[in-house]
Amino acid sequence: MWKIKSLQKLINELSRLPGLGPKSAERLAYFILKQHHSYAQNLAEAILEVKKHVIQCPICHNFTEQTPCWICEDSARDRGLLCVVEDPSTIFKLEKTGTFRGYYHVLHGAINPLQGITPESLNISSLLNRLQQSFNSHPVREVIFAFDADLEGDTTALYLQECLASFPIKLSRLAQGIPLGGSMHFLDERTLSKALQNRVEIPSHSGFDRE
Amino acid sequence: MWKIKSLQKLINELSRLPGLGPKSAERLAYFILKQHHSYAQNLAEAILEVKKHVIQCPICHNFTEQTPCWICEDSARDRGLLCVVEDPSTIFKLEKTGTFRGYYHVLHGAINPLQGITPESLNISSLLNRLQQSFNSHPVREVIFAFDADLEGDTTALYLQECLASFPIKLSRLAQGIPLGGSMHFLDERTLSKALQNRVEIPSHSGFDRE
Repeated sequence: MWKIKSLQKLINELSRLPGLGPKSAERLAYFILKQHHSYAQNLAEAILEVKKHVIQCPICHNFTEQTPCWICEDSARDRGLLCVVEDPSTIFKLEKTGTFRGYYHVLHGAINPLQGITPESLNISSLLNRLQQSFNSHPVREVIFAFDADLEGDTTALYLQECLASFPIKLSRLAQGIPLGGSMHFLDERTLSKALQNRVEIPSHSGFDRE
Repeated sequence: MWKIKSLQKLINELSRLPGLGPKSAERLAYFILKQHHSYAQNLAEAILEVKKHVIQCPICHNFTEQTPCWICEDSARDRGLLCVVEDPSTIFKLEKTGTFRGYYHVLHGAINPLQGITPESLNISSLLNRLQQSFNSHPVREVIFAFDADLEGDTTALYLQECLASFPIKLSRLAQGIPLGGSMHFLDERTLSKALQNRVEIPSHSGFDRE
């Protein structure tokens, strides 16, 4: 395709997408080439529209098309609960569960000094301001860290723990253990070890008498 | 993201790309959202440009930005050799090897009755015309089938074999066997069986005397 400049350019642009190597980018480019013109038109429009309309909520930094976002705008939620996430995608996942009725704060990343992601480049100062201001009206009772269970997530949680030490706020993080539907056979050792450490006592009020 | 219409639209459009499920499409959409506006602009432009500029060569049906394509235009090639391929991507692969100096003909698919791909929907009649006309000036001596080694490829080769039976043309297909760098350990049984059937005698002029 080095002879077809526009095809080569598309392959180059597609190769920059995460998880797509040159081979996959080539396959996608050929697919686009073979589709009706309307598909290319719709895809190109969708890419431009998303950049045009989607902004960050000034309060929680979630992606939104309105200010404030539909969550910060919802006054029926519990102002005492604040869930801190790395990315907006976690908000969508948590909202789908329907089990959390508090508010969110998006850091847009996790601390990773090797990749140059310092606490200053994340939305941490706005989180501290937000918590501070909450004490004027509706104080936040609990901050929940919903981070990836990796080194960056743990580092960020530890850093925030120190930042928030002086606040009269309960801190918590998501439970770690065996994923639902997870088979013992395919479980990695670290998860298994964590699940063992975090084991939960089974109460004995099931009619089955333990002695 | 059901709350963010433009994001949901982008995820829907990306999900239609081959090999991308809703999860991968979501990941790509977030990536695009996080990039600088110029990346979205370049990607959208590249998608539109490729559909605008790339056409099919009227002779060989290869993708091209000029008429005829750079291969059909190249008079230094051997007019006696014609390689028939399913897709333009095979042409680029063969050209990279630098070992073929004939011309090409792109069918744009392989016969697959279950998916409604009949011989009529492929560029077969134009192939027959092209071969017929070649006898007026530079006759084609050999037609090489460079198809996928699957049921559709084999069916297409068989069909073309019958179509071309009356032409005084040699037919051939790519050799099938162990891929270079391939380990016996990971080889599937069908390839191994094919490699055994197609075994090649080792000539005995290496100084090592066989008796």
